[in-house]
Amino acid sequence: MSGHDELVADLQRMLGTSGVLWQPGDMERYRVDWAGSQGALPLAVARPASVEEVAEVVGYCHRHDIPAVPQGGGSGLVEGALPDSVQPELVISLERLNRIREIDPIGYTISVDAGCILQNVKDAAAAEGCFFPLSLGAQGSCQIGGNVSTNAGGLNVLRYGMMRQQVLGLEVVLADGRIWHGMKALHKNNTGYDLKQLFIGAEGTLGIVTGAVLKLSPAPEVTRSAMLACPGVSAVMRLYTLARRCCCDLLSAFELIPRACIDLALEADANLPDPMDTRHPVYVLLEVSASGPANLDDMLEALFERGLEQGLLLDGVLASSDTQASQLWRIREAMLEGQQRRGDHLRSDISVPISQLSEFHDQAEAMVRKFAPEASVIAYGHVGDGNLHFNVLPPPDLPGDEVAMLLHTLEEQLFDIVDTFDGSISAEHGIGRLKQARFLESLSAPELDIMRGIKRLLDPRGQLGAGRILPRTPL
Amino acid sequence: MSGHDELVADLQRMLGTSGVLWQPGDMERYRVDWAGSQGALPLAVARPASVEEVAEVVGYCHRHDIPAVPQGGGSGLVEGALPDSVQPELVISLERLNRIREIDPIGYTISVDAGCILQNVKDAAAAEGCFFPLSLGAQGSCQIGGNVSTNAGGLNVLRYGMMRQQVLGLEVVLADGRIWHGMKALHKNNTGYDLKQLFIGAEGTLGIVTGAVLKLSPAPEVTRSAMLACPGVSAVMRLYTLARRCCCDLLSAFELIPRACIDLALEADANLPDPMDTRHPVYVLLEVSASGPANLDDMLEALFERGLEQGLLLDGVLASSDTQASQLWRIREAMLEGQQRRGDHLRSDISVPISQLSEFHDQAEAMVRKFAPEASVIAYGHVGDGNLHFNVLPPPDLPGDEVAMLLHTLEEQLFDIVDTFDGSISAEHGIGRLKQARFLESLSAPELDIMRGIKRLLDPRGQLGAGRILPRTPL
Repeated sequence: MSGHDELVADLQRMLGTSGVLWQPGDMERYRVDWAGSQGALPLAVARPASVEEVAEVVGYCHRHDIPAVPQGGGSGLVEGALPDSVQPELVISLERLNRIREIDPIGYTISVDAGCILQNVKDAAAAEGCFFPLSLGAQGSCQIGGNVSTNAGGLNVLRYGMMRQQVLGLEVVLADGRIWHGMKALHKNNTGYDLKQLFIGAEGTLGIVTGAVLKLSPAPEVTRSAMLACPGVSAVMRLYTLARRCCCDLLSAFELIPRACIDLALEADANLPDPMDTRHPVYVLLEVSASGPANLDDMLEALFERGLEQGLLLDGVLASSDTQASQLWRIREAMLEGQQRRGDHLRSDISVPISQLSEFHDQAEAMVRKFAPEASVIAYGHVGDGNLHFNVLPPPDLPGDEVAMLLHTLEEQLFDIVDTFDGSISAEHGIGRLKQARFLESLSAPELDIMRGIKRLLDPRGQLGAGRILPRTPL
Repeated sequence: MSGHDELVADLQRMLGTSGVLWQPGDMERYRVDWAGSQGALPLAVARPASVEEVAEVVGYCHRHDIPAVPQGGGSGLVEGALPDSVQPELVISLERLNRIREIDPIGYTISVDAGCILQNVKDAAAAEGCFFPLSLGAQGSCQIGGNVSTNAGGLNVLRYGMMRQQVLGLEVVLADGRIWHGMKALHKNNTGYDLKQLFIGAEGTLGIVTGAVLKLSPAPEVTRSAMLACPGVSAVMRLYTLARRCCCDLLSAFELIPRACIDLALEADANLPDPMDTRHPVYVLLEVSASGPANLDDMLEALFERGLEQGLLLDGVLASSDTQASQLWRIREAMLEGQQRRGDHLRSDISVPISQLSEFHDQAEAMVRKFAPEASVIAYGHVGDGNLHFNVLPPPDLPGDEVAMLLHTLEEQLFDIVDTFDGSISAEHGIGRLKQARFLESLSAPELDIMRGIKRLLDPRGQLGAGRILPRTPL
């Protein structure tokens, strides 16, 4: 038997026939992601159905020196989970680990397998009158293990925090095949170094998350959505400060949407009406929600009044029904579809201190005007977190090779501006392979030393997700 | 010059004369803590006044093989910051690093030196209409660096989270004297391993925190406190689930207070009135607060109504003024004073899953009745976090040596019960040296390996806080 045949036979012995894919046609869907990027053909795809099977496969890889990469729902945006082309890898898919293990509506916790699809976790929580706040475009396909490993963000971070803040306990298969049993459902536990923090956001390079205990909240009983029009980004940010105050801590989303995005949305979905009679420079889509008798309308009214008084607001629409609210939120989805239709463009995911976001926006826009006066800036995002997807559509008539060059230049320039604001070049998407070069440049010597040391400690042979976050060698 | 004289002279050269204490009388206050425990006399006390000075001292210790322990306000409860008696240590006090570096009321962040006293940080935030939520008995003396290093908890965790959730950025002097500059004021930053998580809760064993960027919230404009009487702990926990729902996410404290604690409070402070006309088995002291136009009375009314309906409530007092609210909260303080007056007693800080707290309480109480029928159980705490200070006062007539033995037995028994609930033996106080033996017993092989590896990575010579959390040798 060839080495490859032997690998497949061994995996079949461990996982059963249905637990292994090795025909190129069957493996096709494991080498593409949500953004359309394509990885290499993997050695095989292992589909373990239990934590013990994951441990067996990882231990086998450890003993036989086989590089492996864990894979969730494939909605990452930095090519972290795509099979490597430098050195063929075994894909370990968590898709069959998809049980809701336990839900505790008294203690507001849920315990799940890593392969559970986010939407299923949200639904399971809702069925018990609870709420799992993580809210992402990919929630119908992304998996909890991937959400943990990328420390996912999304729409509700300003109220509930990132995925890191949702995790109470973890179960992780370590690089040597041992299992770390850390599925504690405790809100407080100060016993030694908090090991789960190592694996959250590590993009599968330090171990494979197989289970998680997550915090839940009471399900909102009343929700209000509103779209507000503002004279500019600076006004939006001042409005945000006001909204935090007026809406108490019940503000669950605060999204910046420039006019260009509304146009993209209307382009993508002909049934969508313009949200207001007049065109305005920028819009805010916000949501407040409460699980008890809070008068959300009072809060929004206070916000509108004070916003108008202070000249921060031009107009506003308060959704008076669930249908109307859905229509407002449909704009947020449709604008992404519209953006996608425009072909190659600069996609970014930066963050800066909230109070400097407007100044950052203006500097970045001026930079684009300088380098590509005909390009369109599409800067939207979770400004309540200081997180902006500052994207740029290239001039429509630019030849393909020039587009690639322009986008690269714009990205470098944009990141330079991010640096002057002491910001982040990846607020929520992670590093993977796509952002590695710039990330490594930005690290100080102590940072690089500690990160390398952590990798060496937890994956001494460099077999898990090699080449993601940190370079393959030297470790 | 002797080695000690040389050390003092070298420190004086680095820090100036006022930066070093070495006379035994001057060092006395650095060897005792808030609980009255006493450590050994240190080699000297270094009092650096800048981050650079901290780095210089730590680098010096690294080169000259001098063990050092960082010290904040001295309110830790596990003897983590007290100078060691096995091997004399240099105390590095952060007390002179006490600047509020910057406050940003737009972005709701504050940047501070590690030696800032918690109350001063809270006051600086309040002066700008903001709120820093960490709330502890020791807030008038404890320091932010200690709060970070012990991942402090306190009264408001159920709404705002532990100290870990407040930290956006850190500045840390590493064991080799290098400075890690991680003072980013970003709410989202997924660039590589999140290094700050390593130092939070590490009790100063991996590096010395010298600065922190912290999240703020809008200052509450309206606050309501109430004391409720319940038939038992089980009812309290069901009431908590209800309170989370009725009070939306505006519930900021939910404290269990058994009747025995009320008696201790009245004993300690003769001016305190009994909060209700009748004696009840257990009480809940709760607080709700909001920064905007939320009708908190509506929420509390809904809670009272549903609580009464479901038989969870016997009586209740809603504070109708700030004075009345302060009086209710004064009970919480006075009960601790009363407990202190009773001399040696079992102090614990355990947590279990919230939904199992009542069952845990009953089992633990039965255990105490079995081993010491005359002892008094004083079980109060932050039950909204699953965190109980299950304390026991020994029988009043027991001889001193038997008290010590009994308390040790009760603690061992209590921890055994905690284990059966998959709980924590230290929810918020940490491990230090006091809880080390039991903590080490509880670790699995992978946990011990990883923790040792982290210590080795960040403090390869084992010079910082040696013997805290992990044993001194072998590393």
